[in-house]
Amino acid sequence: MREVAVIGIGQTPVSEHWEKSLRELAGEAVFAAMIDGHRESVDGLFVGNMLSGSLIRQENLGAMIADWVGLRHTEAVKVEAACGSGAAALRAAILAVASGAMDSAIAVGVEKMTETKGVETTAALAAAADADYEAAQGLSFVAINALIMQRYLYEYGWKHTDFAPFSINSHANAVHNPYARLQEPISERSYQKARMIASPINLLDASPIADGAAAVLITPAGDLRRNGRPLIQIAASASATDTLAVHDRPDPLWLTAAEKSVKKAYAQAGVEPQDIDFFELHDAFSIMAALSLEACGFAERGQAPRLAQENQISLHGRIPICTMGGLKARGHPVGATGLYQVVEVVQQLRGEAGANQVDGAKIGMAQNIGGSGATVFTHILRVM
Amino acid sequence: MREVAVIGIGQTPVSEHWEKSLRELAGEAVFAAMIDGHRESVDGLFVGNMLSGSLIRQENLGAMIADWVGLRHTEAVKVEAACGSGAAALRAAILAVASGAMDSAIAVGVEKMTETKGVETTAALAAAADADYEAAQGLSFVAINALIMQRYLYEYGWKHTDFAPFSINSHANAVHNPYARLQEPISERSYQKARMIASPINLLDASPIADGAAAVLITPAGDLRRNGRPLIQIAASASATDTLAVHDRPDPLWLTAAEKSVKKAYAQAGVEPQDIDFFELHDAFSIMAALSLEACGFAERGQAPRLAQENQISLHGRIPICTMGGLKARGHPVGATGLYQVVEVVQQLRGEAGANQVDGAKIGMAQNIGGSGATVFTHILRVM
Repeated sequence: MREVAVIGIGQTPVSEHWEKSLRELAGEAVFAAMIDGHRESVDGLFVGNMLSGSLIRQENLGAMIADWVGLRHTEAVKVEAACGSGAAALRAAILAVASGAMDSAIAVGVEKMTETKGVETTAALAAAADADYEAAQGLSFVAINALIMQRYLYEYGWKHTDFAPFSINSHANAVHNPYARLQEPISERSYQKARMIASPINLLDASPIADGAAAVLITPAGDLRRNGRPLIQIAASASATDTLAVHDRPDPLWLTAAEKSVKKAYAQAGVEPQDIDFFELHDAFSIMAALSLEACGFAERGQAPRLAQENQISLHGRIPICTMGGLKARGHPVGATGLYQVVEVVQQLRGEAGANQVDGAKIGMAQNIGGSGATVFTHILRVM
Repeated sequence: MREVAVIGIGQTPVSEHWEKSLRELAGEAVFAAMIDGHRESVDGLFVGNMLSGSLIRQENLGAMIADWVGLRHTEAVKVEAACGSGAAALRAAILAVASGAMDSAIAVGVEKMTETKGVETTAALAAAADADYEAAQGLSFVAINALIMQRYLYEYGWKHTDFAPFSINSHANAVHNPYARLQEPISERSYQKARMIASPINLLDASPIADGAAAVLITPAGDLRRNGRPLIQIAASASATDTLAVHDRPDPLWLTAAEKSVKKAYAQAGVEPQDIDFFELHDAFSIMAALSLEACGFAERGQAPRLAQENQISLHGRIPICTMGGLKARGHPVGATGLYQVVEVVQQLRGEAGANQVDGAKIGMAQNIGGSGATVFTHILRVM
């Protein structure tokens, strides 16, 4: 396999883009990545998206977006893994370039979620879980995560408020990210007073749905020359799955797919958890931030809230997470999220993260999760 | 890139499988391919599917099917390109194995279309076309193809009945395919009398929706030993796209994406049209059979009906097509179709096509189309 590098990134603000169609959003991110990477065409386009078929009756996004961005006739497909679709598209692009079949590719994640009625969006999102054995019981996606969080509190003896630092950290970081949906800080008091959604998950445990698109342009690493800014190599790309239904797992509090994908990624990159300078994790709900940290070796089982309370997840902590706001405050346009994460990793590694810069960041990791830990993608990037 | 070979195939009957869930259908095909290929596990699973999100509210099929077939924790995703999703999944699997990232992979296409109301299925299928510029005008997918066929009749001076040989051929071949949905011959008279759907497309121009699953197991070709049956190499895998909306094309009667993908495929395999022993083409509608034959170099522009009338598309003709019944009579479970085609190519190349065997078949081609020519995949397989 050829080594692969990121040469361009692009993103739209995460927001309610009622005035823009899906193709326009995707186009904005693709154009930004092409301009950033000084390319006018690529050999392939990989689209990450989960909901366009059910919410806006549009499939075949590969051809649609390729044509819209001026890549008519270029090979293009959509890759789907629920909320992990963005990283799934990136991994498909990486394999295509690494194989030698393509010399360049763009992965673009795009989602448009805010135009439809909330109940429709909730029903469509439940498709990330098991329709026959979870959704059929009336479990929405947030309800499934609430059951997991409830069990976590019971099993390890934490209180709900012990999760406040995760949400506070993400919001604090989003303040300085102009692309974030919620650019406002929150306090422990506002976290405690937030409206309940599905006990114990309240509004400030949950990431907001949103519209948005993010894109990453990749080429073989061997072709590159330094142009005054750091070259960013994709040091690892790995994936694993788990049961779709949480109740099928021996331990509902352990993200086995996250563990398996990150172990493969560490091995590919030749690194260990302590080598990771920052970690863009999948905090769709605060409980998922905790479970990710544990599965990836940053905290002992059941101890992730302590890491957060000790301020180790902030920009100057031992393992900064969600450095540009995470899903919680940047926002979670589901099929785009995995690519927003990688765009943010590149911003950090280039030293372009502004007020949110992690000092001396050389190795960054992104982990994107589809379903309640069912499909997990881990990417490690580093400065070449 | 490593050479890749098919070592196992599996399929379910194409039918109305009201008694089986999506995962059960997919499982049947996967198990059959694993048994056929003498493997108990693979490194990756690629699912081709278009409609499960909108029709049965189930996404994240990769993880779901991997777990169901005993591949819990194995990497798995869904790949979507409308009715081309099956071949899209195969191509993703090929790139993963060719790159060296995986040493084996299964591509499984699965679709469940007959349980929902017809109007829902029609609306969901329209997502293969352009939602903003075609479906928004009230154009169903069959209506778009009807406009193309109408234009073809006008432009080249054919009568509707001149297309009868395409449907008659597919039905004749399906008679001996136990997996086909419509195992019954039709006559020119029944073709002429068939109920009109969207003029000039009548019921016998159109492929039936269906439930079904088909799977292909691949490994690097270098690893293989002959076990008493021919080894089947994937000699070419290529894709191209076109505008999603037909009205955006300079010539609505020319499948540019089919032409571009097949030219790449011919170059990869080092063959020309006359080297192809048979061709599993995408006869979702009889007009698409004609346009495919022309785009791939088997007939002059506007002359494909003549090829059919001269009996050149039958099992003993110059270029046998739809040798196991094609989409028209085997049936068209959309996301599975591309893999049914490749399964059938392998049956022919192994000499296992029974009464439908193409004598001396050494090189076979399959072409799968998503949308009205928007996303096209061409695979060429040959006996090693």
